[in-house]
Amino acid sequence: MVPAALSALKTHPDVSFVLIGNQASIEAELAVHKALDDQRLIVQHASQQVEMDELPSAALRGKKDSSMRVAINMVREGKASACVSAGNTGALMAIARFVLKTLPGIERPAIVTALPTMEGHTYVLDLGANVDSSAAHLVQFALMGSVLVESVEGLSKPRVGLLNIGSEEIKGNERVKEAARLLEKTDLNYIGYVEGDGLYEGKCDVLVCDGFVGNVALKASEGVAHMISHYLRASFKRNILTKLVGLMATPVLKHFKQQLDPRAYNGANLIGLQGIVIKSHGGADEFAFANAIKIAIIEAKKDVPKNISKHLEILLEGQVL
Amino acid sequence: MVPAALSALKTHPDVSFVLIGNQASIEAELAVHKALDDQRLIVQHASQQVEMDELPSAALRGKKDSSMRVAINMVREGKASACVSAGNTGALMAIARFVLKTLPGIERPAIVTALPTMEGHTYVLDLGANVDSSAAHLVQFALMGSVLVESVEGLSKPRVGLLNIGSEEIKGNERVKEAARLLEKTDLNYIGYVEGDGLYEGKCDVLVCDGFVGNVALKASEGVAHMISHYLRASFKRNILTKLVGLMATPVLKHFKQQLDPRAYNGANLIGLQGIVIKSHGGADEFAFANAIKIAIIEAKKDVPKNISKHLEILLEGQVL
Repeated sequence: MVPAALSALKTHPDVSFVLIGNQASIEAELAVHKALDDQRLIVQHASQQVEMDELPSAALRGKKDSSMRVAINMVREGKASACVSAGNTGALMAIARFVLKTLPGIERPAIVTALPTMEGHTYVLDLGANVDSSAAHLVQFALMGSVLVESVEGLSKPRVGLLNIGSEEIKGNERVKEAARLLEKTDLNYIGYVEGDGLYEGKCDVLVCDGFVGNVALKASEGVAHMISHYLRASFKRNILTKLVGLMATPVLKHFKQQLDPRAYNGANLIGLQGIVIKSHGGADEFAFANAIKIAIIEAKKDVPKNISKHLEILLEGQVL
Repeated sequence: MVPAALSALKTHPDVSFVLIGNQASIEAELAVHKALDDQRLIVQHASQQVEMDELPSAALRGKKDSSMRVAINMVREGKASACVSAGNTGALMAIARFVLKTLPGIERPAIVTALPTMEGHTYVLDLGANVDSSAAHLVQFALMGSVLVESVEGLSKPRVGLLNIGSEEIKGNERVKEAARLLEKTDLNYIGYVEGDGLYEGKCDVLVCDGFVGNVALKASEGVAHMISHYLRASFKRNILTKLVGLMATPVLKHFKQQLDPRAYNGANLIGLQGIVIKSHGGADEFAFANAIKIAIIEAKKDVPKNISKHLEILLEGQVL
């Protein structure tokens, strides 16, 4: 996290960082990088930390001076424009929701991230913050995703799709069908149902789904990618001849890997809150964490939460929600 | 379909086929293969056919002499031990359910197929026949999947997992949690929750989920696999040098592709019915369709529907369901 912050200081001269956690540990790391005297780096001590396997409710009640809680408090108090954390997702969501509150008109925050497609990338939400989302929740997700993509990608009227199943008699469940009816009444660029494979074909810029479904789709996708690379590697390792071919193919396989590098997609939004909170993967390296920081900077500059509120007012006035 | 049936006749001397559809077309195809006089091939004329985009309800009401309907009628009358179709899935399910009825104690039939994993393969159900499945439905799916794997794979006490999300405060929805409680009371080898990526790690032999979730997971997996192969191909086609490397890597890439060949997994079960119905992909070639036939033969020999009924009685006596 420290090297990523230091590199962001260089590329973003208007940004400064508050590094929150165990003061001694952070300062030791800063000393390694000869950055103890940087005026744009403030170290804020926090006496506790939320563990990765800690129950969100326990972290919320029992860890009032955790780095996570202190960071989110600073966002609420306007002392920080955004919080970036690589900690326990459930705890981060619980604390952020409790401290920052949701935006007026948003009942549930969602987790959203961009995923690579054959055409570029698609933002998918919700990825696991909610289960059994109602039609109104799905419409709120659609609006938040649309505003996020407009702000972050500079894309006007992003195409919004609803994740559904299409091959059977029962085409989707009632909540998805009702959400479709509501979305048609909004000014969002709603393009209709998208199936699971459509996600990776780049059929839409924002894909909306319940958090249970989105989480399963994300994890299954990661699982398939992992399995494919496992079999690909094994095929190149079968014998001395295939290993030789593999050696020659190294630059090609490297180029291939770079194009789908998950580190380039690190940084999920906890969206729908009165403040910006970005969740990095726990195992992020410098490159991956720098990406999460970049997302936080863009969203802070564009003031994504305010844009969501503005757009929401239009919907509420039109009595769609 | 005809070449696949002819090859199955050779490998299975105790099997015979009824080919159902337009008699003239089928006989023309048989003539090409010089198989018009084969005693183990009967041609059964059907004057209608269900279109791929036809509504299941329309097919059910309006196509009483379709090849699909005639085939399923033959299963009900005991004139055929199983039906294999590459037609419209929704129509096949609707007709099969109406004509064959579900097994006593099974409220909803499900769609199940094997998917490749890093360890072998896992049977997943439901893949799209049902949405909003209750806890009791999920338990019925678990039982059907378990019996299927025992019968088809000869695996004793297959490991049954429940698809869930695990990273958030809200670990799954109420129906999944209730299904877990019920499954613990059964004699099934229930191993607990499995996340989306666990599917491809081979953590269980049977993975149980609602049809909406299963369909999305399946389609998203197909989408990722397609995207990865797209980027892999593109990486080998960038310039003359990479193309040369690609040429040398051809046998390796071919070996890799064979290991995950979806044709080897062709043939989904419409399970829970009083009869065996196997759904082949619409675009199946001879190799893929032969696989669907092979599954039908194994299930008929093992009498999977009877085994499900037997196992279900045990659960009903134990008052688990």
